[in-house]
Amino acid sequence: LPEVCGKEIPSRSKFVGKRLCQREPGHNGVCVEFPFLREFNLQHPAVADKIKRDSIMTTGAAWKSADAGPNRILRWVMLMPDDELKQLGIDMANLKPQVQAKLRDKAASYDACMAVAKKLTWLAYQMPDAPEPGDELKKYLESDFGVMHAGSTKCIVCRLPVSFRLFELAVRGKAAIETGHSNPRAHNPENVGFVHRECNIAQGNKSLDEFYHWIKDIVRRIGD
Amino acid sequence: LPEVCGKEIPSRSKFVGKRLCQREPGHNGVCVEFPFLREFNLQHPAVADKIKRDSIMTTGAAWKSADAGPNRILRWVMLMPDDELKQLGIDMANLKPQVQAKLRDKAASYDACMAVAKKLTWLAYQMPDAPEPGDELKKYLESDFGVMHAGSTKCIVCRLPVSFRLFELAVRGKAAIETGHSNPRAHNPENVGFVHRECNIAQGNKSLDEFYHWIKDIVRRIGD
Repeated sequence: LPEVCGKEIPSRSKFVGKRLCQREPGHNGVCVEFPFLREFNLQHPAVADKIKRDSIMTTGAAWKSADAGPNRILRWVMLMPDDELKQLGIDMANLKPQVQAKLRDKAASYDACMAVAKKLTWLAYQMPDAPEPGDELKKYLESDFGVMHAGSTKCIVCRLPVSFRLFELAVRGKAAIETGHSNPRAHNPENVGFVHRECNIAQGNKSLDEFYHWIKDIVRRIGD
Repeated sequence: LPEVCGKEIPSRSKFVGKRLCQREPGHNGVCVEFPFLREFNLQHPAVADKIKRDSIMTTGAAWKSADAGPNRILRWVMLMPDDELKQLGIDMANLKPQVQAKLRDKAASYDACMAVAKKLTWLAYQMPDAPEPGDELKKYLESDFGVMHAGSTKCIVCRLPVSFRLFELAVRGKAAIETGHSNPRAHNPENVGFVHRECNIAQGNKSLDEFYHWIKDIVRRIGD
């Protein structure tokens, strides 16, 4: 992971834990948690919000918290043991076993979440029809994840390009682009990418390896 | 369609329309709507109920009726024009366009629903681990859909056998076997079959042809 300023950013939420400035050490001006999202914040705030949300929040648990809103809780909170969670008002033992397992599956460290947000930002700028990042931002993103190629970002499931414009397209209130995981049980930069909503649904709980084996076997059975 | 007794079976529900005896013309004894489910009714009532429900009810609309229970309404009711539905207390114009479309997509005639129920029964008896039908029932089912081969019923999506025992298996309250459609917008015997729940989810709104094209293209792109 790159060196960062690391000063704590104040927050009022009891669920949050420490959230840290990700700007370079010794930077001028205010501390910022997602400095690499500053341009999206201005030009495409919905995209910036989505990248933040998908990076740091769990999804889909049938469970609400005052902090996280429906179905969402910070991923690193889910790393805490049951007794500490109970002190925060989260009684894991009272949740159904499958909900507990789902929440624990989505757990990730704060640093991993920050790295995921940065990776997703790097990928978003490489989507067809994406805006160009400023020179400084481009250098910053490339220093972690390598040289960017405009228009090269593909759905990690179907391997077709995913257009930046799809971020604006919601069908029945559901976004057309989602954040996917090669292995649905690991939240880290190597393992995340953008996916079409339908591709994500088709992948389900399978890893990509499992999914590809599954469809290859079907193609073999249908026999042409 | 085969000749049936066709006498009306009395019902108290205003949503039901005419429901007819499906026994042979001139039969002895009481009229029965699903005579081919009599053995399942006794030995595997949950399977009989599932076949009835999947054959005659729509699914998945975000809409409730006193008659149909949550998310369910009789498929042939959805053939009625909006003004007649309104007289029944169903105000289609007040439903979201996508809910309207979904309900209309699931519409099917009463006769088609009865034929689907019979086809599903014929398929269920041919699942691996299924009980054997009585001689008379077997003849009755085979007269419509052809000779039965024990253990031959496969998931219409992945083409692997679906065991009768999966009817008993529910994960997170969801059945492991569902009724699938080669074309999700046509409810008739040629177009229905049993599917694994995960296969049904992966197929989504695609026809099977579309789904197979989709996975073949992915397999080609991943290139091995």
